[in-house]
Amino acid sequence: MTDTRTIVRDLYDAYGRGDGQRVAQFIDDDIDWAIYAPVDVFPFAGVRRGRAAVIETLAGIAAAYALESYRPEIIVVDGDRAAVMSDVHFVQKATGRSLRFRLANFLRFRDGRLIEFREFANTFDVVEQALGRELAL
Amino acid sequence: MTDTRTIVRDLYDAYGRGDGQRVAQFIDDDIDWAIYAPVDVFPFAGVRRGRAAVIETLAGIAAAYALESYRPEIIVVDGDRAAVMSDVHFVQKATGRSLRFRLANFLRFRDGRLIEFREFANTFDVVEQALGRELAL
Repeated sequence: MTDTRTIVRDLYDAYGRGDGQRVAQFIDDDIDWAIYAPVDVFPFAGVRRGRAAVIETLAGIAAAYALESYRPEIIVVDGDRAAVMSDVHFVQKATGRSLRFRLANFLRFRDGRLIEFREFANTFDVVEQALGRELAL
Repeated sequence: MTDTRTIVRDLYDAYGRGDGQRVAQFIDDDIDWAIYAPVDVFPFAGVRRGRAAVIETLAGIAAAYALESYRPEIIVVDGDRAAVMSDVHFVQKATGRSLRFRLANFLRFRDGRLIEFREFANTFDVVEQALGRELAL
Protein backbone atom coordinates (compact mmCIF):
# COMPACT_ATOMS: atom_id res chain seq x y z
CA MET A 1 0.00 0.00 0.00
CA THR A 2 1.22 3.48 -0.86
CA ASP A 3 2.30 5.51 2.16
CA THR A 4 0.39 8.60 3.24
CA ARG A 5 3.17 11.03 2.31
CA THR A 6 3.23 9.82 -1.29
CA ILE A 7 -0.57 9.95 -1.53
CA VAL A 8 -0.61 13.51 -0.16
CA ARG A 9 2.00 14.66 -2.68
CA ASP A 10 0.14 12.97 -5.55
CA LEU A 11 -3.16 14.51 -4.46
CA TYR A 12 -1.79 18.06 -4.16
CA ASP A 13 0.21 17.74 -7.38
CA ALA A 14 -2.96 16.69 -9.20
CA TYR A 15 -4.99 19.54 -7.70
CA GLY A 16 -2.24 22.04 -8.44
CA ARG A 17 -2.11 21.13 -12.13
CA GLY A 18 -5.90 21.16 -12.40
CA ASP A 19 -6.25 17.43 -12.96
CA GLY A 20 -9.79 17.01 -11.62
CA GLN A 21 -10.07 13.43 -12.89
CA ARG A 22 -7.03 12.39 -10.88
CA VAL A 23 -8.20 14.29 -7.79
CA ALA A 24 -11.58 12.54 -7.99
CA GLN A 25 -9.82 9.16 -7.83
CA PHE A 26 -8.60 10.03 -4.32
CA ILE A 27 -12.10 10.75 -2.94
CA ASP A 28 -13.58 7.91 -0.89
CA ASP A 29 -17.26 7.03 -1.28
CA ASP A 30 -17.85 7.78 2.41
CA ILE A 31 -15.83 10.99 2.68
CA ASP A 32 -16.61 13.36 5.56
CA TRP A 33 -15.78 16.88 4.29
CA ALA A 34 -15.97 20.43 5.63
CA ILE A 35 -14.75 23.81 4.39
CA TYR A 36 -15.10 26.35 7.21
CA ALA A 37 -16.15 29.51 5.40
CA PRO A 38 -19.32 31.60 4.96
CA VAL A 39 -21.68 29.97 2.44
CA ASP A 40 -23.24 33.34 1.53
CA VAL A 41 -19.95 34.28 -0.17
CA PHE A 42 -18.63 30.81 -1.00
CA PRO A 43 -21.57 28.49 -1.88
CA PHE A 44 -19.18 25.52 -1.99
CA ALA A 45 -18.34 25.95 1.72
CA GLY A 46 -19.78 23.87 4.54
CA VAL A 47 -20.21 20.19 5.30
CA ARG A 48 -20.49 17.49 2.62
CA ARG A 49 -20.94 13.75 2.93
CA GLY A 50 -20.00 11.29 0.20
CA ARG A 51 -18.06 11.29 -3.02
CA ALA A 52 -20.74 12.74 -5.31
CA ALA A 53 -21.31 15.77 -3.06
CA VAL A 54 -17.58 16.46 -2.80
CA ILE A 55 -16.98 16.17 -6.54
CA GLU A 56 -19.88 18.58 -7.08
CA THR A 57 -18.25 20.95 -4.57
CA LEU A 58 -14.89 20.77 -6.36
CA ALA A 59 -16.68 21.52 -9.64
CA GLY A 60 -18.39 24.49 -7.97
CA ILE A 61 -15.03 25.91 -6.88
CA ALA A 62 -13.58 25.42 -10.36
CA ALA A 63 -16.62 27.05 -11.99
CA ALA A 64 -16.20 30.25 -9.98
CA TYR A 65 -12.42 30.40 -9.47
CA ALA A 66 -9.50 29.66 -11.77
CA LEU A 67 -6.53 28.17 -9.95
CA GLU A 68 -3.36 30.15 -10.67
CA SER A 69 -1.08 28.42 -8.16
CA TYR A 70 -1.33 26.05 -5.23
CA ARG A 71 1.90 25.69 -3.31
CA PRO A 72 2.07 23.44 -0.21
CA GLU A 73 4.49 25.07 2.26
CA ILE A 74 4.19 22.68 5.21
CA ILE A 75 3.25 18.99 5.00
CA VAL A 76 2.85 17.06 8.25
CA VAL A 77 2.20 13.32 7.95
CA ASP A 78 1.31 10.98 10.82
CA GLY A 79 0.01 7.47 10.09
CA ASP A 80 -3.23 7.78 8.12
CA ARG A 81 -3.47 11.52 8.80
CA ALA A 82 -1.87 14.60 7.28
CA ALA A 83 -2.03 18.36 7.60
CA VAL A 84 -1.01 20.75 4.83
CA MET A 85 -0.52 24.51 4.88
CA SER A 86 -0.50 26.02 1.41
CA ASP A 87 -0.03 29.36 -0.28
CA VAL A 88 -2.67 29.70 -2.98
CA HIS A 89 -3.71 32.07 -5.74
CA PHE A 90 -7.11 31.95 -7.42
CA VAL A 91 -8.73 34.30 -9.92
CA GLN A 92 -12.44 35.03 -9.55
CA LYS A 93 -13.77 34.31 -13.04
CA ALA A 94 -16.69 36.75 -12.90
CA THR A 95 -14.49 39.76 -12.08
CA GLY A 96 -10.85 38.84 -12.80
CA ARG A 97 -10.00 39.60 -9.15
CA SER A 98 -6.91 37.87 -7.77
CA LEU A 99 -7.32 36.18 -4.40
CA ARG A 100 -4.13 35.22 -2.59
CA PHE A 101 -4.25 33.53 0.81
CA ARG A 102 -3.15 30.55 2.85
CA LEU A 103 -5.12 27.35 3.33
CA ALA A 104 -4.84 24.89 6.20
CA ASN A 105 -6.07 21.35 5.52
CA PHE A 106 -6.44 18.35 7.80
CA LEU A 107 -6.79 15.05 5.93
CA ARG A 108 -7.32 11.40 6.77
CA PHE A 109 -6.91 8.48 4.38
CA ARG A 110 -8.12 4.87 4.23
CA ASP A 111 -6.82 2.44 1.60
CA GLY A 112 -5.25 5.32 -0.33
CA ARG A 113 -8.44 7.38 -0.43
CA LEU A 114 -9.43 10.56 1.37
CA ILE A 115 -12.09 9.84 4.01
CA GLU A 116 -11.89 13.05 6.09
CA PHE A 117 -11.13 16.64 5.06
CA ARG A 118 -11.23 19.92 6.97
CA GLU A 119 -10.25 23.26 5.44
CA PHE A 120 -9.43 26.52 7.22
CA ALA A 121 -8.49 29.95 5.98
CA ASN A 122 -8.49 33.49 7.35
CA THR A 123 -11.95 33.85 5.84
CA PHE A 124 -12.47 37.46 6.98
CA ASP A 125 -9.58 38.41 4.67
CA VAL A 126 -10.61 36.03 1.89
CA VAL A 127 -14.18 37.43 1.89
CA GLU A 128 -12.78 40.97 1.55
CA GLN A 129 -10.67 39.83 -1.39
CA ALA A 130 -13.68 38.08 -3.00
CA LEU A 131 -15.91 41.15 -2.58
CA GLY A 132 -13.16 43.55 -3.63
CA ARG A 133 -13.77 45.83 -0.65
CA GLU A 134 -13.30 46.04 3.11
CA LEU A 135 -16.03 44.71 5.38
CA ALA A 136 -17.67 47.32 7.60
CA LEU A 137 -17.05 46.57 11.27
CA MET B 1 15.19 14.52 24.34
CA THR B 2 11.43 14.50 24.71
CA ASP B 3 9.55 13.52 21.55
CA THR B 4 7.39 16.02 19.69
CA ARG B 5 4.10 14.26 20.52
CA THR B 6 4.76 14.48 24.25
CA ILE B 7 5.78 18.15 23.97
CA VAL B 8 2.62 18.95 22.01
CA ARG B 9 0.42 17.25 24.59
CA ASP B 10 2.19 19.03 27.46
CA LEU B 11 1.90 22.39 25.70
CA TYR B 12 -1.82 22.06 24.94
CA ASP B 13 -2.56 20.64 28.39
CA ALA B 14 -0.82 23.65 29.96
CA TYR B 15 -2.68 26.11 27.73
CA GLY B 16 -5.99 24.35 28.36
CA ARG B 17 -5.65 24.61 32.14
CA GLY B 18 -4.56 28.25 31.91
CA ASP B 19 -0.99 27.61 33.09
CA GLY B 20 0.66 30.60 31.40
CA GLN B 21 3.96 30.07 33.24
CA ARG B 22 4.25 26.56 31.84
CA VAL B 23 3.22 27.67 28.34
CA ALA B 24 5.89 30.39 28.42
CA GLN B 25 8.56 27.74 29.07
CA PHE B 26 7.83 26.23 25.64
CA ILE B 27 8.39 29.48 23.72
CA ASP B 28 11.78 29.71 22.02
CA ASP B 29 13.69 33.01 22.09
CA ASP B 30 13.64 33.14 18.28
CA ILE B 31 10.03 32.09 17.72
CA ASP B 32 8.41 32.99 14.39
CA TRP B 33 4.67 33.43 15.11
CA ALA B 34 1.56 34.37 13.16
CA ILE B 35 -2.16 34.40 13.93
CA TYR B 36 -4.08 34.94 10.66
CA ALA B 37 -6.98 37.14 11.75
CA PRO B 38 -8.04 40.79 11.40
CA VAL B 39 -6.13 43.00 13.84
CA ASP B 40 -8.96 45.57 13.94
CA VAL B 41 -11.05 43.04 15.86
CA PHE B 42 -8.29 40.96 17.45
CA PRO B 43 -5.33 43.23 18.32
CA PHE B 44 -3.26 40.19 19.27
CA ALA B 45 -3.42 38.85 15.67
CA GLY B 46 -0.66 39.13 13.11
CA VAL B 47 3.03 38.36 12.97
CA ARG B 48 5.32 38.32 16.03
CA ARG B 49 9.02 37.63 16.31
CA GLY B 50 10.71 36.55 19.54
CA ARG B 51 9.70 35.26 22.94
CA ALA B 52 8.85 38.61 24.56
CA ALA B 53 6.46 39.62 21.76
CA VAL B 54 4.70 36.25 21.88
CA ILE B 55 4.30 36.26 25.65
CA GLU B 56 2.85 39.77 25.40
CA THR B 57 0.43 38.47 22.74
CA LEU B 58 -0.66 35.56 24.93
CA ALA B 59 -1.24 38.02 27.77
CA GLY B 60 -3.30 40.17 25.39
CA ILE B 61 -5.52 37.23 24.51
CA ALA B 62 -5.95 36.32 28.20
CA ALA B 63 -6.77 39.94 29.10
CA ALA B 64 -9.67 40.09 26.63
CA TYR B 65 -10.89 36.47 26.59
CA ALA B 66 -11.38 33.91 29.36
CA LEU B 67 -10.66 30.38 28.20
CA GLU B 68 -13.59 28.06 28.97
CA SER B 69 -12.33 25.00 27.13
CA TYR B 70 -9.64 24.05 24.64
CA ARG B 71 -10.04 20.55 23.25
CA PRO B 72 -7.55 19.22 20.66
CA GLU B 73 -9.51 16.96 18.29
CA ILE B 74 -6.78 16.06 15.77
CA ILE B 75 -3.04 15.94 16.51
CA VAL B 76 -0.68 15.20 13.62
CA VAL B 77 3.02 14.81 14.48
CA ASP B 78 5.87 14.48 11.98
CA GLY B 79 9.48 14.85 13.16
CA ASP B 80 9.92 18.35 14.60
CA ARG B 81 6.55 19.51 13.24
CA ALA B 82 2.96 19.14 14.40
CA ALA B 83 -0.51 20.30 13.40
CA VAL B 84 -3.41 20.49 15.82
CA MET B 85 -7.11 21.08 15.17
CA SER B 86 -8.99 22.10 18.30
CA ASP B 87 -12.51 22.86 19.41
CA VAL B 88 -12.36 25.94 21.65
CA HIS B 89 -14.65 28.08 23.78
CA PHE B 90 -13.71 31.54 25.00
CA VAL B 91 -15.76 34.18 26.83
CA GLN B 92 -15.27 37.81 25.85
CA LYS B 93 -14.63 39.46 29.21
CA ALA B 94 -16.03 42.89 28.27
CA THR B 95 -19.43 41.52 27.23
CA GLY B 96 -19.76 37.96 28.55
CA ARG B 97 -20.27 36.73 24.98
CA SER B 98 -19.39 33.07 24.33
CA LEU B 99 -17.25 32.40 21.27
CA ARG B 100 -17.08 28.79 20.09
CA PHE B 101 -15.00 27.84 17.08
CA ARG B 102 -12.25 25.60 15.73
CA LEU B 103 -8.58 26.49 15.58
CA ALA B 104 -5.96 25.02 13.25
CA ASN B 105 -2.35 25.31 14.40
CA PHE B 106 0.90 24.42 12.64
CA LEU B 107 3.87 24.13 15.01
CA ARG B 108 7.58 23.46 14.77
CA PHE B 109 9.90 22.66 17.66
CA ARG B 110 13.64 22.82 18.29
CA ASP B 111 15.19 21.35 21.45
CA GLY B 112 11.74 21.04 23.01
CA ARG B 113 10.77 24.65 22.35
CA LEU B 114 8.31 26.16 19.89
CA ILE B 115 10.15 28.00 17.10
CA GLU B 116 7.33 28.36 14.54
CA PHE B 117 3.59 28.84 15.00
CA ARG B 118 0.77 29.51 12.54
CA GLU B 119 -2.87 29.80 13.57
CA PHE B 120 -5.97 29.63 11.37
CA ALA B 121 -9.67 29.93 12.10
CA ASN B 122 -12.82 30.67 10.13
CA THR B 123 -12.31 34.31 11.10
CA PHE B 124 -15.40 35.61 9.29
CA ASP B 125 -17.48 33.57 11.74
CA VAL B 126 -15.29 34.36 14.75
CA VAL B 127 -15.51 38.11 14.04
CA GLU B 128 -19.32 37.85 13.92
CA GLN B 129 -19.27 36.05 17.27
CA ALA B 130 -16.91 38.68 18.75
CA LEU B 131 -19.08 41.58 17.53
CA GLY B 132 -22.32 39.83 18.50
CA ARG B 133 -23.88 40.51 15.09
CA GLU B 134 -23.74 39.48 11.47
CA LEU B 135 -21.37 41.29 9.11
CA ALA B 136 -23.05 43.17 6.27
CA LEU B 137 -22.08 41.72 2.90
